[in-house]
Amino acid sequence: MTTFETDPADPAAGPPAGAVPRTRTHHWHAGPPISEFPHLTGEEILRGIIAGRIQQPPIGSTLGFLLVEAGPGTAVFEGVLGDHLFNPMNTVHGGYLATLLDSALGCAVMSRLPAGVGYTTTQLNVHMVRPLFAESGHVRCEGVALQVGRTMATAEARITGCEDGRLFAHATTTCAVLAPRRAA
Amino acid sequence: MTTFETDPADPAAGPPAGAVPRTRTHHWHAGPPISEFPHLTGEEILRGIIAGRIQQPPIGSTLGFLLVEAGPGTAVFEGVLGDHLFNPMNTVHGGYLATLLDSALGCAVMSRLPAGVGYTTTQLNVHMVRPLFAESGHVRCEGVALQVGRTMATAEARITGCEDGRLFAHATTTCAVLAPRRAA
Amino acid sequence: MTTFETDPADPAAGPPAGAVPRTRTHHWHAGPPISEFPHLTGEEILRGIIAGRIQQPPIGSTLGFLLVEAGPGTAVFEGVLGDHLFNPMNTVHGGYLATLLDSALGCAVMSRLPAGVGYTTTQLNVHMVRPLFAESGHVRCEGVALQVGRTMATAEARITGCEDGRLFAHATTTCAVLAPRRAA
Amino acid sequence: MTTFETDPADPAAGPPAGAVPRTRTHHWHAGPPISEFPHLTGEEILRGIIAGRIQQPPIGSTLGFLLVEAGPGTAVFEGVLGDHLFNPMNTVHGGYLATLLDSALGCAVMSRLPAGVGYTTTQLNVHMVRPLFAESGHVRCEGVALQVGRTMATAEARITGCEDGRLFAHATTTCAVLAPRRAA
Repeated sequence: MTTFETDPADPAAGPPAGAVPRTRTHHWHAGPPISEFPHLTGEEILRGIIAGRIQQPPIGSTLGFLLVEAGPGTAVFEGVLGDHLFNPMNTVHGGYLATLLDSALGCAVMSRLPAGVGYTTTQLNVHMVRPLFAESGHVRCEGVALQVGRTMATAEARITGCEDGRLFAHATTTCAVLAPRRAA
Repeated sequence: MTTFETDPADPAAGPPAGAVPRTRTHHWHAGPPISEFPHLTGEEILRGIIAGRIQQPPIGSTLGFLLVEAGPGTAVFEGVLGDHLFNPMNTVHGGYLATLLDSALGCAVMSRLPAGVGYTTTQLNVHMVRPLFAESGHVRCEGVALQVGRTMATAEARITGCEDGRLFAHATTTCAVLAPRRAA
Repeated sequence: MTTFETDPADPAAGPPAGAVPRTRTHHWHAGPPISEFPHLTGEEILRGIIAGRIQQPPIGSTLGFLLVEAGPGTAVFEGVLGDHLFNPMNTVHGGYLATLLDSALGCAVMSRLPAGVGYTTTQLNVHMVRPLFAESGHVRCEGVALQVGRTMATAEARITGCEDGRLFAHATTTCAVLAPRRAA
Repeated sequence: MTTFETDPADPAAGPPAGAVPRTRTHHWHAGPPISEFPHLTGEEILRGIIAGRIQQPPIGSTLGFLLVEAGPGTAVFEGVLGDHLFNPMNTVHGGYLATLLDSALGCAVMSRLPAGVGYTTTQLNVHMVRPLFAESGHVRCEGVALQVGRTMATAEARITGCEDGRLFAHATTTCAVLAPRRAA
């Protein structure tokens, strides 16, 4: 089943000069939001995702990345690059880096939250220090929580090449910590 | 033709409890990078994209957004939401907002650059002020250049709902302006 | 009465080569924190400061700036430059710009808060777009609230030259809005 | 010699209700900008400041902080708090934190620059995670360069309490690296 309605390419326009059509199909699992697991801590939810008991976030399938590690105060994602991520310069779009970083930052904060407590990202600050090419291969994004309070949390994260460890981008975040919900 | 290798879903893991499989296929045109058009100003390139003479950036097909307007110092993207954008809370991932904002910010800067001059985003700062649901419909992201110098530029952008104009996120950027390349 | 203990200059070191000693004395009023006025709205407090019924923030005397205007969702500070603000390049230190911007951003948010509700800045993002010299004269910093919710608020601000309106820096903020205190 | 003209307190307004007048005098050395030392590396300039051969930045006297350590890729400032730093809540103004952080970030970048190469801060992102009171005593701000290229550099910094090591704020920066000037 396709969601063609979210693909904005206008077939009437005809192919631009020198361009060739490309098609990509991706797959994911749609499941309940993690708010359905109020008895699990943030770290338990993240370990459940890695173990395949809870679905990976759908956007990871759309862009091409996975949660691969989680511990108390840390979360790691890995991504596979491709030309579906290109910006107009045919390098990897900064938004892909921002999405990976936002994911690792949010999950690093989440890994320190007790059962039933949620969070939402209010601010994301990204530094892009080197262009990322599709040929750059796999990238790794590690997030670390810096300060987790009762109403606010901050974290930092970095994206490096899996092969050579070169730094491509780094980021920080401010998250709002959401008051525990009443028992489910 | 699929790029299955960039879809990290592990078929061996089996579906998580309560999750259902989803598939999405999207289409785009792969063409030359805009550095191939050193005789066009930034605004002319953007108008060429809108007119379909130059391909839309591929990541727009992957996530679901299009460049729809450009003028001197401004660029507007519109996006269509869907569940392929979900984060673990089943709301639209902040990375989608960051990608839209980064696109509008970069293109707003680009719209003020003379022929043959490039740019690269070095810093992106995003404020997310309200959760975005898949049912929120279309969103609009407007970028405006604030200061464009010979080596550096800044811009600001906002995402609002197409129907009700509600503010979902806003951002600023610092871009490096790249010295003009020698004649092509 | 001086607070010489907060002046870290070490007299034992002797003057560096080519340097001349400078002394500056400044004055302010120490008064109660604004939390002592729980019956006033944020805008009423700001108007009280401008009218001289509530003291200007002491840091304004230290650095050289004043709150001069406030309205619903806006706040304006004006600053006078001098060589006490110099960084090692003998231009105005970016921290002076950041302090002015932080002040205007926070007060713009405050101007939209009801009586008894406080705030605290959690994140500040500053773009510096042009060097500021002591000879640049007076600067003006205008802040505007963008989104003020029950737990979070954002704002944007700009610093321009009073004479020529040139843009020197701009910024955004995320503030935490603090739950109303019980009646005083 | 005083620079009374940069003290904006209006004596005609009379003291606000419940406020008491305060006066502070501070001292510094005015000397040549560091661009006068094109034969010294960034680290050599910083070590010259610590040794007292080059003047500390004047803003450090104004606010109350000193450069105390520098190494390849790092710079440390220490600050002494006082009520001249108060915001309207009578806690230490976020701008003081931003100024300390900006100083440590810029000097950390500078410590990696070769002789004759300058820099300027283009973007500063500050996270404030805990209120800072005048009674909090001394604070320490450590900056570390993350990526220093030929045209751009980034760094991160943290402010902690000297006694207890508690984290008060952290920040990142993007600096523009300025092409070497021709021989002086």
